[in-house]
Amino acid sequence: MIIALAGGVGGAKLARGLADILGPQELLVAVNVGDDFEHLGLHISPDIDTVMYTLAGRNNIQTGWGIAGETWNFMAALEQLGGETWFRLGDQDIATHIERTRRLKAGEGLAAVTASLCAALGVKHAVVPVSEDLVRTFVDTDAGLLPFQDYFVRCKSEPSVVALNYEGARGARPSSALLSAFDDAKLQGIIICPSNPYLSIGPMLEIPGVADKLKRRRTPCVAVSPIVGGMALKGPAAKMMGELGVEPSAFEVAKLYLGLIDGFVIDVVDEKLAPGVAALGIQPYVTPTIMHGRDEQKHLAAGVLRFAQTLTADTSSVKT
Amino acid sequence: MIIALAGGVGGAKLARGLADILGPQELLVAVNVGDDFEHLGLHISPDIDTVMYTLAGRNNIQTGWGIAGETWNFMAALEQLGGETWFRLGDQDIATHIERTRRLKAGEGLAAVTASLCAALGVKHAVVPVSEDLVRTFVDTDAGLLPFQDYFVRCKSEPSVVALNYEGARGARPSSALLSAFDDAKLQGIIICPSNPYLSIGPMLEIPGVADKLKRRRTPCVAVSPIVGGMALKGPAAKMMGELGVEPSAFEVAKLYLGLIDGFVIDVVDEKLAPGVAALGIQPYVTPTIMHGRDEQKHLAAGVLRFAQTLTADTSSVKT
Repeated sequence: MIIALAGGVGGAKLARGLADILGPQELLVAVNVGDDFEHLGLHISPDIDTVMYTLAGRNNIQTGWGIAGETWNFMAALEQLGGETWFRLGDQDIATHIERTRRLKAGEGLAAVTASLCAALGVKHAVVPVSEDLVRTFVDTDAGLLPFQDYFVRCKSEPSVVALNYEGARGARPSSALLSAFDDAKLQGIIICPSNPYLSIGPMLEIPGVADKLKRRRTPCVAVSPIVGGMALKGPAAKMMGELGVEPSAFEVAKLYLGLIDGFVIDVVDEKLAPGVAALGIQPYVTPTIMHGRDEQKHLAAGVLRFAQTLTADTSSVKT
Repeated sequence: MIIALAGGVGGAKLARGLADILGPQELLVAVNVGDDFEHLGLHISPDIDTVMYTLAGRNNIQTGWGIAGETWNFMAALEQLGGETWFRLGDQDIATHIERTRRLKAGEGLAAVTASLCAALGVKHAVVPVSEDLVRTFVDTDAGLLPFQDYFVRCKSEPSVVALNYEGARGARPSSALLSAFDDAKLQGIIICPSNPYLSIGPMLEIPGVADKLKRRRTPCVAVSPIVGGMALKGPAAKMMGELGVEPSAFEVAKLYLGLIDGFVIDVVDEKLAPGVAALGIQPYVTPTIMHGRDEQKHLAAGVLRFAQTLTADTSSVKT
């Protein structure tokens, strides 16, 4: 049994590679909910959807979000009606949001709704919201404090970031399936996927129950760097690091996870950073990390799993 | 200034004919809201939408509801997710419901939202919900008491009707634009469109403020029969009349409106019913009433307007 912590695109790619190797009972993907928001009266869970669509093989590779072969007639009609169209919702995608919202209002929890939607789309591995409590990422910027999607989509990540605020995270509990997986005797490793450390992983680590489980882990935890050659493959991770006064590099990402991980996977172009990572007390693993397609997803996943098997959980440096 | 009371398809057709003749300030179409319902978390106003889409020239002639050239990718995706698909919502149509619901939740009234949606679609004539209060039609049948859409769409109008119940109508107020139009010194006539007398017109007449204005009218009121040759052109009107113990005929529709109308328009195939209508104290007008296209809509509208001009309001028989 493996737990993977994932945000959007990069996390979803590695999750799919893991799902291609591990059986349905052997993988639980815990997904960030800090990006979730209410829009047009609908509950939208962008990271859950990206992971769900990717595991279903339905993800849109061109956009990095939404469904492949999507149509946009709803959006065009909404635009004609003068509605808000800055957040693009495809005709098929909106069914996910409407059905999720309907079930949440009827009293189902986000975990149950996610499981049901995943089952309907043929996703066999567990996709679990990291928490069913309200966790919302706010980005404090030179343009003011912005709800995540305002920063990320409406403002195209252009404002300079001053700080992150994960509203609700401190009081949130991990979802029960995630807690069970952490405590499962069959758990063999935890993987932090190559997702934005501030926007995707940060909100999850801010949840005390998740951070505690990582600090007191009894199985190795491996993170995969989302920064390759000083750049983010997708999204504003590198730009944010710079704005927060941190050099955009895989090494600095490893430092962010200090005490929580035993191994760190960096791309071959960052091989020179391996000794620095090792000096942090974190075992480095150098491998190609860019996943263009399903083969590369599976290849990286296999390498990460093999790497994790060589490690032992070292929590000696952690103050609990 | 003319007030037209309209339900769905038939009402919308005559409304368009009237709109082709009368200027934007000369016509107010008051629309039934008894069919409105909450579905998938959305506020759906089927009759308002049919009138709005028809006046915009966007209505789907094949289905009789929804938008021409509609696509169904939302519905297909919702079906895959196991959602409720018995009420068909097209990809463009759903933008109307989402935008309406969003605005209602933000505190706007249904009249303001309707006006805004109409303006966005280029509808220049006033389309007004008969009331902004909650009016909901329930159909008491041999299969139990059914909310309107359950009867009409889900059960395809198959259960036998015992009685109609217009929940909320007795306590509802007419919307303010409709009240103003009734009191407008420029008002020249009131037209009850060829809509189902039980399902479309009934809920409107059950609102005391509407019934009072018709009973105390100072301008002639003309109804157009939705029953032609003993059959309804669309929908279950004739079937319902039979189930309610009334012969399905234009004459019986005229009787339903006794005291509220001065003239009654029947189709040429029902010419033999004219003397009976006249014997009720209602002036009959015999003309082709089937509107296949825009020319016939305009032709009937012109005939109805001319007919109304020949009448005077006669409220002498009404007990107030």
